[in-house]
Amino acid sequence: MSATDDGAAFETSPRNRVVRRPARGRYDKATVYDILDSAMLCHIAYVIDGQPYCTPTSFWREGDHLYWHGSSASRMLRSQSAGLPVCLTVTHMDAIVLARCGFNHSINYRSVMAYGHAHLITDPVEKRTAMDRFIERFFPGRSSLLRPPSAQEIKATSFVGMAIEQASGKIRNEPVHDDEADYAVPAWTALLPIRTVVGAAEECPRQMAGVTRPEGMAGYAAGRPLDAIMLETYRTLYGEAAAAGNAATGPATDSDTI
Amino acid sequence: MSATDDGAAFETSPRNRVVRRPARGRYDKATVYDILDSAMLCHIAYVIDGQPYCTPTSFWREGDHLYWHGSSASRMLRSQSAGLPVCLTVTHMDAIVLARCGFNHSINYRSVMAYGHAHLITDPVEKRTAMDRFIERFFPGRSSLLRPPSAQEIKATSFVGMAIEQASGKIRNEPVHDDEADYAVPAWTALLPIRTVVGAAEECPRQMAGVTRPEGMAGYAAGRPLDAIMLETYRTLYGEAAAAGNAATGPATDSDTI
Repeated sequence: MSATDDGAAFETSPRNRVVRRPARGRYDKATVYDILDSAMLCHIAYVIDGQPYCTPTSFWREGDHLYWHGSSASRMLRSQSAGLPVCLTVTHMDAIVLARCGFNHSINYRSVMAYGHAHLITDPVEKRTAMDRFIERFFPGRSSLLRPPSAQEIKATSFVGMAIEQASGKIRNEPVHDDEADYAVPAWTALLPIRTVVGAAEECPRQMAGVTRPEGMAGYAAGRPLDAIMLETYRTLYGEAAAAGNAATGPATDSDTI
Repeated sequence: MSATDDGAAFETSPRNRVVRRPARGRYDKATVYDILDSAMLCHIAYVIDGQPYCTPTSFWREGDHLYWHGSSASRMLRSQSAGLPVCLTVTHMDAIVLARCGFNHSINYRSVMAYGHAHLITDPVEKRTAMDRFIERFFPGRSSLLRPPSAQEIKATSFVGMAIEQASGKIRNEPVHDDEADYAVPAWTALLPIRTVVGAAEECPRQMAGVTRPEGMAGYAAGRPLDAIMLETYRTLYGEAAAAGNAATGPATDSDTI
């Protein structure tokens, strides 16, 4: 299960090898990066004095690095600025799978667990760049429309970066499966698709006269799946080439609505 | 911020006190439990040899206990059967909040971080009960329709339980806010609602003739938000009384469709 093409897959070790249902494990960067780039939110596990914490936050990827945001007041950043080990996890829930026995019930999903050591971004130029990227990665063209950050805001903003040392993806994308004898069990069975979608924009009541939704926000059309929007806006900023690939990772990265 | 009504709120300590944006912290059980009971998936942080892991999984609550599922082959359960400390986190993303400067961009969300020590369920009766509850909690009336678990399936199934020692909720449910001078910045601003919804059921191609969607699955109607379905099915099994309360925790626990 180790890398077959240097640079195109993550080396595996006990830390990132998928133990439960190993056939669902993915280690190629194309798949792992598509799952990461399809998300706005992740959950980050870190340890302080032996106590694990799991914190949700927004994040983005640049090459083999992940970045996320927080106030310098946060407990997470105080500990992570020291370069502590973290695990950053992204999960897309795609379907609930009903079956004819409890054991065969399941969830279709795409997930990634990425491992590395977090460090605080302290270089002023790198930090200022991160502030714009944090906007641009999600909202193409938006950073130039905004009032630029003040000195106080720059001071109050912190970013954390992490080189991805190892990662693994895990995908389940299967229909209902039952033991052959169980197809005679009269229980209604189905796959129930789950999708996270954007709703109709609720415009600010103090919107300036004449200001309309800019082209860069067209992707956030009501009803579209958030994962498809995330992958699209990622590629608007970083390009198809910067993305690791176009791996088909599941059913929910298309532009269809639910 | 400590409990004002014994049993109705979690005691606070540095472990569960909300440090960043403390005004968003919630410690009353009614609010914390509603956020937990509105979810099917959580992320669990745990530590093995100093390395944190963050694993997504489905879970449910019974009183002050949380339960989740896994194969006895999983790394997580091997370590957690020893009673290791964990942090179980649930996050509902409710909206993206655009503003007129980068600093005021935000996300509306409801989250809970619950702390405790995980233990493997080994008592056979308790384990068998958990297998039915794991189905019933999500799919009312379904366990009696299924082929009962075989001895081999019972052996291959593991559940982990955790008494909630401490927990904290965190809620942001606010419109666009900008600094007064910034309302003259001609950037389009809006709140973009985000909702995780169920799609149209894809019935099993081998559905038995005459088998139709049972009454207990009526809640999973296409277009409904998953968090509302989760809270509803939770209360079908455990009742309103067993739930801690009916706290208004945000915009997405209603039955409206997107």
